[in-house]
Amino acid sequence: MAQNIYDRAEFFEGYSGLARSVRGLDGAPEWTAIRALLPHLAGKHVVDLGCGFGWFARWARSQGAASVLGIDLSENMLARARADTADAAIGYERADLETLALPEAAFDLAYSSLAFHYVQDFGKLAGTVYRALQPGSRLVFTIEHPIYMASMRPEWLTREDRSGSGRSWPVDHYAVEGERRTDWFAKDVLKYHRRLATTVNTLIDAGFALHRLVEWSPTPQQLAEQPELADEMERPMMLLVAAGK
Amino acid sequence: MAQNIYDRAEFFEGYSGLARSVRGLDGAPEWTAIRALLPHLAGKHVVDLGCGFGWFARWARSQGAASVLGIDLSENMLARARADTADAAIGYERADLETLALPEAAFDLAYSSLAFHYVQDFGKLAGTVYRALQPGSRLVFTIEHPIYMASMRPEWLTREDRSGSGRSWPVDHYAVEGERRTDWFAKDVLKYHRRLATTVNTLIDAGFALHRLVEWSPTPQQLAEQPELADEMERPMMLLVAAGK
Repeated sequence: MAQNIYDRAEFFEGYSGLARSVRGLDGAPEWTAIRALLPHLAGKHVVDLGCGFGWFARWARSQGAASVLGIDLSENMLARARADTADAAIGYERADLETLALPEAAFDLAYSSLAFHYVQDFGKLAGTVYRALQPGSRLVFTIEHPIYMASMRPEWLTREDRSGSGRSWPVDHYAVEGERRTDWFAKDVLKYHRRLATTVNTLIDAGFALHRLVEWSPTPQQLAEQPELADEMERPMMLLVAAGK
Repeated sequence: MAQNIYDRAEFFEGYSGLARSVRGLDGAPEWTAIRALLPHLAGKHVVDLGCGFGWFARWARSQGAASVLGIDLSENMLARARADTADAAIGYERADLETLALPEAAFDLAYSSLAFHYVQDFGKLAGTVYRALQPGSRLVFTIEHPIYMASMRPEWLTREDRSGSGRSWPVDHYAVEGERRTDWFAKDVLKYHRRLATTVNTLIDAGFALHRLVEWSPTPQQLAEQPELADEMERPMMLLVAAGK
């Protein structure tokens, strides 16, 4: 079972204060890049794996989606999603992505934002999602980038010892896949590092065709408005993936 | 025009001393992983982009390839390739991969080892290779991994300041694609950094289907025999790619 970090009080409180929690999709700097990967949603049946507060579900309906099923492990997230949603075509269900069951050929789009890196068995999940999609469908998801996740000590390194200054992000243990434990709003948040190649090959082995990879970085306009996003030019924090069945 | 580093005396001398230059394909630790990506070669027409000393061309013929065309920019490399090859079905031609012209639908396999990172316009090259392949063909190539190439100061970082010791590889300027100049056997070797996503998306845009990515790391047996390969567990130096037309 995946670690249900979002139901720890201190984590939920911290996460709820993020721009992406307060402002929704537009509070996430990568949202414009995600949108570019999405198909037209009119009439589509959508499943959102790790739906959180339901921002994407409601947006998908505003774009004409016929239905959205939001899946999450967190009771906290689902409670707020249900409270914030008044739409009979949106349903929420509690499930662990490690053991997820979905109806076959029931969806036209599977979407997931920053959830799959909590899942240990990505091959099993990819197979489940593939079978749940109609032919011609799309899988669009984001995960923490393996460059961001790999190191056992993921903290910026400053080097003043040679010409100029500058920060570098550490990469180590990249080929050592598996558990990574970090402190983020709570102690000992458990994620699973996979090489980028492993994520891609797992999708291909499940039957998907890879359509697009995005190692997200800000636009010049975003950089001007949010100077702290300069970090994202140094090393990617997020990987966006679009694949087709 | 790509920098013709292999025709600088000091570089050629250094490169010629590498295990992969002396022992050929078996001197390259990634060779077994490359082989796993190759199709059966019997009867195939092969083009090798950056053929160097011709080791792959001769091996491909030993596997039954009908013909091999080796392309390289370096007169030094081609001179030795020709001297070491006595096979009328192997031809060598001098060309710059930046401006390469190939006959259309003439080959069943395009192969390239550690050459494409010297090429500035990968989109143009990918289009040229795509048109040169028969339907059902394969493109298999290796490049320096962007994690290895991205930093402006690509040197191991040691951190003794916190718990335990350990080395990390620096990643910075990952989103800043373009020229990287390093010293390797010669001063100021010019390579081009591209994000992994850019390499993959460029292939897809050219018409290829991605089949496999390998961020190469050694097997346990290789690690036991060559302890210095432990570096490759920390950060990938090489990316292997297989795509299909």
